[in-house]
Amino acid sequence: MKKIAIINGPNLNLLGKREPHIYGSQTFEAYFKQLQADFPKLSLQYFQSNMEGELVTKIQEVGFELDGIVINAGAYTHTSIAIADAISAVPAPVIEVHISNVYARETFRHHSYLAPVCKGCIVGLGLEGYKLALMALLN
Amino acid sequence: MKKIAIINGPNLNLLGKREPHIYGSQTFEAYFKQLQADFPKLSLQYFQSNMEGELVTKIQEVGFELDGIVINAGAYTHTSIAIADAISAVPAPVIEVHISNVYARETFRHHSYLAPVCKGCIVGLGLEGYKLALMALLN
Amino acid sequence: MKKIAIINGPNLNLLGKREPHIYGSQTFEAYFKQLQADFPKLSLQYFQSNMEGELVTKIQEVGFELDGIVINAGAYTHTSIAIADAISAVPAPVIEVHISNVYARETFRHHSYLAPVCKGCIVGLGLEGYKLALMALLN
Amino acid sequence: MKKIAIINGPNLNLLGKREPHIYGSQTFEAYFKQLQADFPKLSLQYFQSNMEGELVTKIQEVGFELDGIVINAGAYTHTSIAIADAISAVPAPVIEVHISNVYARETFRHHSYLAPVCKGCIVGLGLEGYKLALMALLN
Amino acid sequence: MKKIAIINGPNLNLLGKREPHIYGSQTFEAYFKQLQADFPKLSLQYFQSNMEGELVTKIQEVGFELDGIVINAGAYTHTSIAIADAISAVPAPVIEVHISNVYARETFRHHSYLAPVCKGCIVGLGLEGYKLALMALLN
Amino acid sequence: MKKIAIINGPNLNLLGKREPHIYGSQTFEAYFKQLQADFPKLSLQYFQSNMEGELVTKIQEVGFELDGIVINAGAYTHTSIAIADAISAVPAPVIEVHISNVYARETFRHHSYLAPVCKGCIVGLGLEGYKLALMALLN
Amino acid sequence: MKKIAIINGPNLNLLGKREPHIYGSQTFEAYFKQLQADFPKLSLQYFQSNMEGELVTKIQEVGFELDGIVINAGAYTHTSIAIADAISAVPAPVIEVHISNVYARETFRHHSYLAPVCKGCIVGLGLEGYKLALMALLN
Amino acid sequence: MKKIAIINGPNLNLLGKREPHIYGSQTFEAYFKQLQADFPKLSLQYFQSNMEGELVTKIQEVGFELDGIVINAGAYTHTSIAIADAISAVPAPVIEVHISNVYARETFRHHSYLAPVCKGCIVGLGLEGYKLALMALLN
Amino acid sequence: MKKIAIINGPNLNLLGKREPHIYGSQTFEAYFKQLQADFPKLSLQYFQSNMEGELVTKIQEVGFELDGIVINAGAYTHTSIAIADAISAVPAPVIEVHISNVYARETFRHHSYLAPVCKGCIVGLGLEGYKLALMALLN
Amino acid sequence: MKKIAIINGPNLNLLGKREPHIYGSQTFEAYFKQLQADFPKLSLQYFQSNMEGELVTKIQEVGFELDGIVINAGAYTHTSIAIADAISAVPAPVIEVHISNVYARETFRHHSYLAPVCKGCIVGLGLEGYKLALMALLN
Amino acid sequence: MKKIAIINGPNLNLLGKREPHIYGSQTFEAYFKQLQADFPKLSLQYFQSNMEGELVTKIQEVGFELDGIVINAGAYTHTSIAIADAISAVPAPVIEVHISNVYARETFRHHSYLAPVCKGCIVGLGLEGYKLALMALLN
Amino acid sequence: MKKIAIINGPNLNLLGKREPHIYGSQTFEAYFKQLQADFPKLSLQYFQSNMEGELVTKIQEVGFELDGIVINAGAYTHTSIAIADAISAVPAPVIEVHISNVYARETFRHHSYLAPVCKGCIVGLGLEGYKLALMALLN
Repeated sequence: MKKIAIINGPNLNLLGKREPHIYGSQTFEAYFKQLQADFPKLSLQYFQSNMEGELVTKIQEVGFELDGIVINAGAYTHTSIAIADAISAVPAPVIEVHISNVYARETFRHHSYLAPVCKGCIVGLGLEGYKLALMALLN
Repeated sequence: MKKIAIINGPNLNLLGKREPHIYGSQTFEAYFKQLQADFPKLSLQYFQSNMEGELVTKIQEVGFELDGIVINAGAYTHTSIAIADAISAVPAPVIEVHISNVYARETFRHHSYLAPVCKGCIVGLGLEGYKLALMALLN
Repeated sequence: MKKIAIINGPNLNLLGKREPHIYGSQTFEAYFKQLQADFPKLSLQYFQSNMEGELVTKIQEVGFELDGIVINAGAYTHTSIAIADAISAVPAPVIEVHISNVYARETFRHHSYLAPVCKGCIVGLGLEGYKLALMALLN
Repeated sequence: MKKIAIINGPNLNLLGKREPHIYGSQTFEAYFKQLQADFPKLSLQYFQSNMEGELVTKIQEVGFELDGIVINAGAYTHTSIAIADAISAVPAPVIEVHISNVYARETFRHHSYLAPVCKGCIVGLGLEGYKLALMALLN
Repeated sequence: MKKIAIINGPNLNLLGKREPHIYGSQTFEAYFKQLQADFPKLSLQYFQSNMEGELVTKIQEVGFELDGIVINAGAYTHTSIAIADAISAVPAPVIEVHISNVYARETFRHHSYLAPVCKGCIVGLGLEGYKLALMALLN
Repeated sequence: MKKIAIINGPNLNLLGKREPHIYGSQTFEAYFKQLQADFPKLSLQYFQSNMEGELVTKIQEVGFELDGIVINAGAYTHTSIAIADAISAVPAPVIEVHISNVYARETFRHHSYLAPVCKGCIVGLGLEGYKLALMALLN
Repeated sequence: MKKIAIINGPNLNLLGKREPHIYGSQTFEAYFKQLQADFPKLSLQYFQSNMEGELVTKIQEVGFELDGIVINAGAYTHTSIAIADAISAVPAPVIEVHISNVYARETFRHHSYLAPVCKGCIVGLGLEGYKLALMALLN
Repeated sequence: MKKIAIINGPNLNLLGKREPHIYGSQTFEAYFKQLQADFPKLSLQYFQSNMEGELVTKIQEVGFELDGIVINAGAYTHTSIAIADAISAVPAPVIEVHISNVYARETFRHHSYLAPVCKGCIVGLGLEGYKLALMALLN
Repeated sequence: MKKIAIINGPNLNLLGKREPHIYGSQTFEAYFKQLQADFPKLSLQYFQSNMEGELVTKIQEVGFELDGIVINAGAYTHTSIAIADAISAVPAPVIEVHISNVYARETFRHHSYLAPVCKGCIVGLGLEGYKLALMALLN
Repeated sequence: MKKIAIINGPNLNLLGKREPHIYGSQTFEAYFKQLQADFPKLSLQYFQSNMEGELVTKIQEVGFELDGIVINAGAYTHTSIAIADAISAVPAPVIEVHISNVYARETFRHHSYLAPVCKGCIVGLGLEGYKLALMALLN
Repeated sequence: MKKIAIINGPNLNLLGKREPHIYGSQTFEAYFKQLQADFPKLSLQYFQSNMEGELVTKIQEVGFELDGIVINAGAYTHTSIAIADAISAVPAPVIEVHISNVYARETFRHHSYLAPVCKGCIVGLGLEGYKLALMALLN
Repeated sequence: MKKIAIINGPNLNLLGKREPHIYGSQTFEAYFKQLQADFPKLSLQYFQSNMEGELVTKIQEVGFELDGIVINAGAYTHTSIAIADAISAVPAPVIEVHISNVYARETFRHHSYLAPVCKGCIVGLGLEGYKLALMALLN
C-alpha cells in the first residue's frame, strides 16, 4: 500500500473561508476525507502549516519514508528556496499543485522555486488537482 | 458523449524518435489509441502540426464545437501570442500539457503565453499528463 | 486607379465572433464590402491568414506591384521579425492598423516589430482605422 | 456643431522651422487654417504650449466642455503622467497624434504615457494625422 | 558521396531583389548552381520557405537522412524555438549561416535561438558563407 | 503658532470632479476649510498648481519660512526630481500624502522621487491623510 | 468599543535596543501602554513575532474578529507574500506602519508586498505612526 | 562680438543658499557679474527658471539668434526630453554644465537627456565650469 | 575564554544525508564535537533550525552576550532580510560560512542578504570553513 | 602575395593543454605550420599574447600594412572595447574566429564587443575555423 | 611651479590617423607641444599606453608626486575598475577628458567607471578639452 | 613540502599606502614574510602585477607546477574573464581572497568572475584571509 503525504502551505487552512471566488467554498479537511474515500488503496496523510520552516521539516520527515508527496506551498511557492532545497534533498517524488491558475494572477505568482525540483506541476484545476496528482503518483 | 480534441504542436510528431531520454520512446499515435481505449465515454480527436497558423486554425475550428481541448503547443508555448489569442477566442475550456518538466530546462521554456488563458496546466508528468487532462475535462 | 491590399493576420477571421466587447460584432468581409463602396476610386483586395509565412509571402507578392498595403498583423505584430523584414523589403508604403487600443491591454501588446518599418500606425479607432489608413494612402 | 480642440505640446511651435526633414516645412498655424476650411461643420480651436502644466490645465478646461480633443504632446508624451491623468479625468474622447513615426526614432520615444488613456493613436502620417483624427472624432 | 541540404528561411527568396546594399544582387538559385559546380563531390539539395513550420518539417525530413544541413533561418533565427528544437532532434550536424553581419544591425538580430544547438555559425561573409559551411561539413 | 503649508500638484484641483470612485467627491477647498477649523492652533495656507516649476518655487518660498509642508505632488511624485531637489534644499520638514493607495494602482505610481527626501509618507487614507500629516507636524 | 490589534514583525522586539539612531530608544511595550492611555475608547491588543508564519496565523485569528489591524511586518514587508495573502483573506482593514523612512534606506526596503492589499501606509513618522494609524482606523 | 546665453534650471536660484557643501556659497548672480568682467569681449545674458517649459521657450528664443548657449538644466537634465528637443532644434552650439560631480551622486543623476544633443559637457568643476564652457564657445 | 555560537539554517540538519556529492557525508553534530576538540580554549555552542524566525531569535539571544557568531543560514541566506536585520542589530561579529561554492551553483544562490552586514564570508571550503571562521574570530 | 596576420588572445597559448574536450589537443604552433602549408600563396604571420594592450598594439601595427587579420581574442572578446576600437581604427578587414561554440557555453560568452566591427565571424568549427577565415579573406 | 601629467589610454596613439571625422587629424604629440607653449607656468608630462596595467602603474607613480592628472583612458574608461581604484588611491586631483561626445555614441560609451572618483569631466570639446582641464587644475 | 603561490592583482602593491581605513597599513611584503614564518612547512612564492595579462601568464606558469594558488585579483576580480579562464585551465586548486568585505562596498564589487572557477572564497577578514586560505590548501 503506497503512502503519500499531502502538504499544504500558508493560508490554505482558510480554504472555504478565504476568497471563495478564487478557491471555492469547501474546506480542505472535508475534501481530504473525500480523497481518502476515492483512493482506498492509498495511505494518505495530511499536514498544513503557515510556517515555512515547519513545511521544510515535514518534507524532511516524510520524504525519506513515504512513496510520494503532493505539495501546495501557497505563497511560499514563490519565495522559498528552503522548501525547494528540502524537496531536492529527499528521494520521494513530489508533485506541485495549485488550486487557482497562478499564471492568470499577479506576476509574482508566475515563478515557482519548487517547480524545477518537483517531478511535475498541476495548476488551475481546482481541488481536482490534488486528485490528479495522487493518480500520477499511483502510476 | 463529450467531444475533446488533443492538439500537439511542433516536433511532437517526432515523439518516440526525438530525445527519448526526455520524452520517452512511445509515438503519440500509439498513445492516442490507448487513450481512446481508456476513455470509452469520450469522443476524442487528434491533430498535430508543425505550423503555428494551423494550430490557430484548428483551435478556431474545434473551439466553438467541442467540449474541451488538451493542447501541448511545444515550442510555440513560449513564443506564440497567436495561439493564445485563439484560445481566448473560443468558449471551449483548454488545458495545457507538457510532457517534460519545462521548469527544469532552459529559462526560455519557463514562460508560457498560453497558460494565463488556459483553464489549467499539467507539466512534467509524461504522457500521463494527457490522461489527467482528459479526466479534468470530464469533471 | 490606385491599388491597395488590406492584409489581416491571425484570428481576425473571427471578427464579429471573438471577444465582441473588444472588437465589435461586424465580420471583416462585411466591412470590406462597405470599404469598397466608400472608396470607388480604389482597387482594393483583401487577404487574411493565420499563417505568419503566408503573410510574408503575400506582402512579397503585392508589395512590388500595388500602391500600398494596410496591415493588421494581429498577434504577429508583437512577435514577427519575418513580417517586418518583408515590409522593409518591398517598395509599397505600409500602414499598420489595430482595431483595439493595444496600449490599454497586456504589456506584450505594446511593442510592434512592424511599426518602425511601416510608414505609420493607426491604433484603437475600431474598424474605422482601416478607412483612415486608406485615406492616408490616397494622399 | 461638434467642438474639438487641437492641443500641441513643446517645440511644436517650431513646426516649419525645426528639423524639417522630419516634420516638414509648414507651420501649424497655416495648417490649422486649412483644417478649419476642410471641416466646415466642426468648431475647432487650437492651443500650443511648451509648459506641461498649461497642457494639463487646458485639457481640464476643454475636456468637460468640448466633444473631443486631438493631442500631440510632443516630448511630454514620453514623460508626463500629469497629462495622462488629465486625459483620464475628463469625459471628452482624446486622440493622440504624432507627425513623425516615433517608433523609427530613439527608444525613449517608443513609450507613451498618454496612449493607454486615449481612445486611439495616429502615428507617422505627417500633418495628415490631425485630419484623420478629426475624422475619427466626427464619426 | 555526402548529402547536404541547404535550407533558407523567410525573405531569402527575395535575394537579389531585397536591400541589395546588404545582401547583394545575386539570386540564391543562381548561387546554388554555382555551389553545385564548386562541390562536385557533394549531393546538394536546396529548400526555401517563408513558413516556420515548413522549415521545422524539412529539418525533420532531411535531418535523419542526410550528412549535414546548412541553415540560414533568416528572421526566424531570432524568434523560433521550434526550429531550434528540430535541429536538436536530428542527428545531422547543422551549421548556421548569415549573409550579413547580424551583430552590426538591430539588437534583436544579435540573439540566435539556433546557435546553441548548431555545430557552428558563419556570419557576415556574404554568400561565401554557404561555401565555407559546406567545406566545414566536408571535413 | 506653527505655520504649515499644504501644497497640491496637478489635477488635484479636479478633486470632487475627477474619478470620484478613487478620490471622493469633496473639493479640496471645502476640505481645507474643515482642516482650518480642526486645527485652530495652526496657521495653514494652501497652494495648488498644475505646473511642476510653480511647485518648486512655492516650496522654495515657504520652505525657509514655515514650520512644515504637507505635499501631495500628484503625478509629479513619480517624475519630478526638481521637486525632490527643492524639498532637500529647504529646512522645513515635509510630509508626503497620497489620497489613494498608489501601491494598488499602476506600477509607475509605486515609485516616488519625493519619498526619500521627505520626513515621511501617508498613503491611501483618503483626505484624512492630510489631517494625520498635520498632526505629525504638530508633534 | 472598537477592537484593534497591533502586530509587529521580526526584530521589533529589539526596539529601544537595536540601532537607536534609526528607531529611537523606547521599547514597544512601553509605547503600547502609552497608546492604551491615549485611546481609552479602543480595545487594543499587541502581538509580536519573529516568525513569518506566526504573523500569518495571528492575522487569520484577529482579522475575522476585530475592527482593524495595524501592522509593521519589519523585514517581512519586503519578502512575504504569505502575510500579504493573509491580509487579503481577512475582512478587517489593515494599515501598514514603518517607523523609519524605508525609502531613504536600502533599495530592497522600497518595495512592500503588503502595501497593495492594505488600506493605507504610514511611513517614516516614528512611533507616532502607530498612533496616526489608530486614528485612521477610528474614523 | 559673440553673444552667449547662460541658462540655469530649477533650484539654481538657491545657489549660495541650498546645500552649500555641494554647491558652494556664492549666488549665481554674483558669479555672473564676475563672468562678465572676465569675458569683456563676450555679450553675456543670464536666464534662470524653475519651469521646464520656460527653459524650452528661452532656448527657442536665443538659439536662433545667439552664438552659443551654456546650460545647466539642474534636475531637468535627467527628466526632460522637451529641453533636449529644443536644443536639437536650434543651430546654436550648446554646452552642458554641472557644478557638482553628478556621477558621484544618486544613480538617477548619471543620465542626461541633454548630453547627446549638446556639443559637450563639463561636470564637477564647480562654478569654474561655466567659465570653461564660455572659453570653449569662444574658440 | 571566548564564547562563540555556530548557527545553521534550514536543511543543514540533513548534513551527511542530503546530496552528499555536494555537502559530504559527515553529520554536523559529529563535526561539532571535532570542532570542540580542536578549539579547547573556546566555549562553543551549536544551534540549528529550519525556521527563519528561530534563527532571528537565536541571533538576538546570543548576539548581545557572546563574542562571535558563525552562521550558515542555508537557503535563507538568499531570501531573508529578517536575519540580516538581526545580524545588524547585535554587537557580536558574525562570519558567514557556506560549505559548497555557491557561486558555482544556481544564480539565485549568488546573492546573500547577510554578506553586507557580516564581518566576512568563507565559501566553498567544506566543513573546514567553520574551523577557519572560528580562527578568524579568535584573532 | 596577400599578407595576413593571425592574432590569438589570452590562454590560447595553452591550446592542446587546456580543456582538450572543448579545444582539442593540437597546439596552435603545430596547426599554424599546417596552415602555412595549406595556403602557399599567403604570407602568414602569427601573434599571441595574454595582454589586452599588446593585442591592441599588434592590431595597430599590422592593420595598416597587411591585407587582413584573423583574430581569436579569447576572453577579451567579451570584455574589451579597446580591441574593438583598434579593429575599427585600421583599414584591414578582420574576421573573428572562435574554436568552440561560444553560444553553447556560459551566457557571458554570448556577447562579443568585436563582432559588430569585424567583417564577419566563424564560431564553433574548431581549428578549421581559422582555415575558413583565411579562405574568406582570400576572396 | 605646478606639475601635471596627461595620461592617454588605448588607441589614442592613433590620434590623427584613426577616424579623423570623430577625433580630428592632429597627433597628440603635436598638440602636447602646443599645450606646453600655452601653459609656460606648468610643468607638463605626457604618457600614453595601450595597456590597462601600465596606466594603473603610471597613476600610482605620479599620483603621489604631482599636483594633478588629466586622463583620457579611452576604451578603458568604460571597463576598468582597476584604473578607477588607482585614481581613488592617489591624492592628486584627476580630471577626465573625452575628445568626442561619448554620449552621442554607442550606449556602452555612456558609462564611466572613472567619473565618480575623478574631480570632474570634460566631454566632447575636442582636444580643447585637455586645455580646459589644465585650466581647472591651475585654479 | 607543498608549494603555493600567492598572486595579487592591481593596486595591491599600494597596500599600506592606499585607503588604510579599508585595507590596513601593513605592506604586503612585510605580511608575506610573516606568512613564511607562520608556515615553515610550505614553500611560498609571491607575485604582484597591475597587468591583467601578466596575472594570466603567472597562473599558467605556476598552475601546472605548484600545489595551490591564493589569488586576490583586486579590481580584475569583477572584470576579467581571461583570469577566470586561466584558473579553469590549470589543475592547481585556487582560493580567492579579498581583504575588505566587497559585499559591503559598491555593487560592481559584488560579482566575481573568478569565484565560480575557484575552489572557494574568503572575503572581508583582512590580511588574515591569506593565512586562512593557506590553511585550507594545507588540508
